[in-house]
Amino acid sequence: RKCPSVISIEQAIDEAMRYARTFLPEGKVATYIPELAHGDPDQLGVCLITKDGTVYHDGDWRQEFTIQSISKTICLIFALQTAGYEKVFSKVGVEPTGDAFNSIVKLETKTLHPLNPMINAGAIATASCCMELEDPFGSFMDLTRRLCGRESIQLNESVYLSEKKSGMRNRSMAYLMQSDNILECDAELALDLYFRMCSVSVTTEDLARYAVVLANDGVDPATGERLVENWIVRIVKTLMVTCGMYDGSGEFAMKVGIPAKSGVGGGIMASVEDRMGIAAFGPALDAKGNSVGAYRVLEYLSQTLRLHYFAGKDL
Amino acid sequence: RKCPSVISIEQAIDEAMRYARTFLPEGKVATYIPELAHGDPDQLGVCLITKDGTVYHDGDWRQEFTIQSISKTICLIFALQTAGYEKVFSKVGVEPTGDAFNSIVKLETKTLHPLNPMINAGAIATASCCMELEDPFGSFMDLTRRLCGRESIQLNESVYLSEKKSGMRNRSMAYLMQSDNILECDAELALDLYFRMCSVSVTTEDLARYAVVLANDGVDPATGERLVENWIVRIVKTLMVTCGMYDGSGEFAMKVGIPAKSGVGGGIMASVEDRMGIAAFGPALDAKGNSVGAYRVLEYLSQTLRLHYFAGKDL
Amino acid sequence: RKCPSVISIEQAIDEAMRYARTFLPEGKVATYIPELAHGDPDQLGVCLITKDGTVYHDGDWRQEFTIQSISKTICLIFALQTAGYEKVFSKVGVEPTGDAFNSIVKLETKTLHPLNPMINAGAIATASCCMELEDPFGSFMDLTRRLCGRESIQLNESVYLSEKKSGMRNRSMAYLMQSDNILECDAELALDLYFRMCSVSVTTEDLARYAVVLANDGVDPATGERLVENWIVRIVKTLMVTCGMYDGSGEFAMKVGIPAKSGVGGGIMASVEDRMGIAAFGPALDAKGNSVGAYRVLEYLSQTLRLHYFAGKDL
Amino acid sequence: RKCPSVISIEQAIDEAMRYARTFLPEGKVATYIPELAHGDPDQLGVCLITKDGTVYHDGDWRQEFTIQSISKTICLIFALQTAGYEKVFSKVGVEPTGDAFNSIVKLETKTLHPLNPMINAGAIATASCCMELEDPFGSFMDLTRRLCGRESIQLNESVYLSEKKSGMRNRSMAYLMQSDNILECDAELALDLYFRMCSVSVTTEDLARYAVVLANDGVDPATGERLVENWIVRIVKTLMVTCGMYDGSGEFAMKVGIPAKSGVGGGIMASVEDRMGIAAFGPALDAKGNSVGAYRVLEYLSQTLRLHYFAGKDL
Repeated sequence: RKCPSVISIEQAIDEAMRYARTFLPEGKVATYIPELAHGDPDQLGVCLITKDGTVYHDGDWRQEFTIQSISKTICLIFALQTAGYEKVFSKVGVEPTGDAFNSIVKLETKTLHPLNPMINAGAIATASCCMELEDPFGSFMDLTRRLCGRESIQLNESVYLSEKKSGMRNRSMAYLMQSDNILECDAELALDLYFRMCSVSVTTEDLARYAVVLANDGVDPATGERLVENWIVRIVKTLMVTCGMYDGSGEFAMKVGIPAKSGVGGGIMASVEDRMGIAAFGPALDAKGNSVGAYRVLEYLSQTLRLHYFAGKDL
Repeated sequence: RKCPSVISIEQAIDEAMRYARTFLPEGKVATYIPELAHGDPDQLGVCLITKDGTVYHDGDWRQEFTIQSISKTICLIFALQTAGYEKVFSKVGVEPTGDAFNSIVKLETKTLHPLNPMINAGAIATASCCMELEDPFGSFMDLTRRLCGRESIQLNESVYLSEKKSGMRNRSMAYLMQSDNILECDAELALDLYFRMCSVSVTTEDLARYAVVLANDGVDPATGERLVENWIVRIVKTLMVTCGMYDGSGEFAMKVGIPAKSGVGGGIMASVEDRMGIAAFGPALDAKGNSVGAYRVLEYLSQTLRLHYFAGKDL
Repeated sequence: RKCPSVISIEQAIDEAMRYARTFLPEGKVATYIPELAHGDPDQLGVCLITKDGTVYHDGDWRQEFTIQSISKTICLIFALQTAGYEKVFSKVGVEPTGDAFNSIVKLETKTLHPLNPMINAGAIATASCCMELEDPFGSFMDLTRRLCGRESIQLNESVYLSEKKSGMRNRSMAYLMQSDNILECDAELALDLYFRMCSVSVTTEDLARYAVVLANDGVDPATGERLVENWIVRIVKTLMVTCGMYDGSGEFAMKVGIPAKSGVGGGIMASVEDRMGIAAFGPALDAKGNSVGAYRVLEYLSQTLRLHYFAGKDL
Repeated sequence: RKCPSVISIEQAIDEAMRYARTFLPEGKVATYIPELAHGDPDQLGVCLITKDGTVYHDGDWRQEFTIQSISKTICLIFALQTAGYEKVFSKVGVEPTGDAFNSIVKLETKTLHPLNPMINAGAIATASCCMELEDPFGSFMDLTRRLCGRESIQLNESVYLSEKKSGMRNRSMAYLMQSDNILECDAELALDLYFRMCSVSVTTEDLARYAVVLANDGVDPATGERLVENWIVRIVKTLMVTCGMYDGSGEFAMKVGIPAKSGVGGGIMASVEDRMGIAAFGPALDAKGNSVGAYRVLEYLSQTLRLHYFAGKDL
């Protein structure tokens, strides 16, 4: 809680990586999707891109990994652009849950509709809103490539097949929602799109570019081109604050205080309002499914660079 | 979602009040505490104080009402100052719940500890941390008067007695926590302090003064005196974002986007980072326990004055 | 609660039918399986077979209907005979749930294993234990025909296809169990067997014959041939007492007091220990899924013929 | 599951005690009520009284212990006699819960009313129906003494005070029910009666006498005097079957098959229809709160003496 004197971004990143590495042994690589189990728990990488275009990076920042739940933010942008506000929020709410990302309970006890688009059930329902497009996944990939500024982004086919084959719990949620008439299409169709979205292969640089677009209100700071509507950016960042880190979102908001979204592939993407985009990556996860190393990198950067949205001004 | 051109605060307040009044018939005065049932559902008031000290107000801004759950934010400040971070957060978590403010379920199914200090169970547990003081409620009142800048703030004795007599559901929560060794004192002691805290009588001006202190990072902008430590302000405002509006917190964050806390007495207090404090009041409540009129006043002000923390800059 | 003087079975049935008909307007035909919606809510039938072989019947006793959940008792016999006690009860418990027949909640909050074989999830898990047979459904049909004493019992193909196509909630449960490694086979395989079992077409006479076999400790009273092992009969009848009537089992036990099993096809089958088997049928269901008319027929017969297992002896 | 040849009751009891003693090390004495922690985990006793008045006993059959939850059956008789069927069952249901005896969850999620009178919440609600009597506990003691056939039965004052002082979870339930207008009196009044009822001191002989009255349809077999109305006996025994052994009721029904009720004081009371009453006692409890030793004594007696209600007749 002490506030260090002024420090350069390079130095902050350097210290953050050293700090974060000490926590890696506390984490474990995800095993519930067989393909993810191949991750190297010692990897750690970070990329930070400021609004003026300066790129900082360290460690395994060029390692490709699957985007997993971070795709839920792009899926939401995609669905709001494609199907509109009314349709999407007739399927899914905007409230945090207090339950784990793959919990089914609230679908039965609280409300038939998933509580928000950042949990699995909510993302599946959100994905189901985009089925009237001719090639939903193709259009999703176009959007993803634009947001990340890299044309060569691809699906990781073996992770996709692995998720599709083993994702029984997601399948269970999807059928429960189909049973309650919440999906806009058959469960298997929505699941297939969802599994594909989760299996897109990215690097920290890709995600940092996407994050700085969100930080800059949806406009690519390099070109000045608007990629996402202002009202959509606001919704997405707000949901990242309240629900972006699974059932650890409240603690992350308190300790780090940056709109962020994590994925079980080991990535976390974070948008510092009007300043920068950050992405960190490390396959070792904590019990809630957040990357231990990436979390600590962001925690350290937030404290030393005063990135918390309520950091205040005085030292 | 349209962004109006520049507008004065006076005009924005004037329009907000007219807009909000049209929603009053949708609400109902709280009846579960007998004394609250006397509220006038047609009342509506607002007070806004900027960091430079200008005060704006309209409607029933001088009406006294009981602070109710807004006291949970002061209770948390009080407990963090008195008992410290470690003690308080060993009793209560920081996660949103997705359940109603008076829900008991998660105490049994998810974790013995209440999920956050903004729900009733969490506030009772937080209050129990302050019992080693000689006069806990006296010290709480001192803090409240300093934060609100009014020495004459008093307890509403009849509301206090009414709550104490009728608050069986809160009593149930307190005994369940005592059974699980979560309280630092006997249930009835913690409840008595909790009921007193909820029954403090305030006006929108009191709460707007308190809100601008939080907006100014804990420093009274008039005197330059620090009233609350920086790290505590950060925690409180973060919890206001994620949990401040009961199980409507997610929707409020999306639509209004100001750290805020509401109470069933009809008040909502909101802190616009580095800019202003706002408090609105109207006894007619929606189904989640938030004041219908105060909510709409804040929604309108947020849109016209661009107060959302992710408002962005472009028009 | 008055105890009438001695009355003949014919007269009791006659009165029971008249009594039960007055309740039919309270019920509604099941609609969640499209094919079931064709049922005629005014139908009512009963068949009663005593241990000495006398057959009594009235109303629509010859009407064919699908066995639905009554098949859960045969499925349990089948699995215990095929896979054994240890295997079956490693998959499913023996406790009542207090929840509705198609509830998913307890699979997540209480225990991964379904609480008993009389709810949908439990029956699907039970069915999955029989997959090592060459033709599981063929063997199940053989058993069903022997227990009911009719070689010509058939599958209702259109109900089976309708259930298979529309049974999304059952599908959700099955995938959740597969995710938790509770099923002995793929979800779709277990579901297919389950849907077939539920879609067998029977009459009240078929079920009354089956019921008298259970009442006679597993031995066909006509031939003296043992069809079900003694220890299996005991388990099945015990579960019929505690869980046979969905979440209305407790009330049925109190008011009627005969081991029984109901199905949403409109049938209820009941075994009066050492005395008789009874089956009643009426497609109009109450809110818990039990046939309104069949329930009332059994209630009336229990009172007038003193069939409650704790009826006592004195008048 | 083998059926031994004919065996005398003496021999069966002798073998049952030896069999049961081998399980005692698996249990633990209850500690959540401080006074109960003094129990001796090595104690084991049994008393069996046949309808013709023969008394069998072994071990610590004369040891006094507190009746605890077994009093819930007498409380129900008492309330049905005092306040009537309609009143009692407007407060409490008759369905098994599948949850632990002290669970609160269903009071919030399923129904405001406790699911049955055999769980703590249900017994407190049942007790609250008897408050119009001048001396409710005095009248309850009169009934208890008559049912057990011993005038000298007394309250264990120190257990009562210990429960009253430490029973925070029961207090929590009572206030939740008062909040929902389910109690007929103030929570503390209902709790006081409930704690007293649980603290009555009995022996296995007392409970066996009570059990044989129930087995004999409410009539004292020695005197021919009716002590409990027929319809009340039927309700009580039915609830003993479905809910008498906490969330182990289903397993007990399957394996033992005698209407029974257990208490955390270490006693279990069981009524074999039209034949005998049995009570066993041992302070070492299993995880569900049932006496390990008493459970095993009853299991052994049920098998060797063929006491299961669905024992059948053939060997």
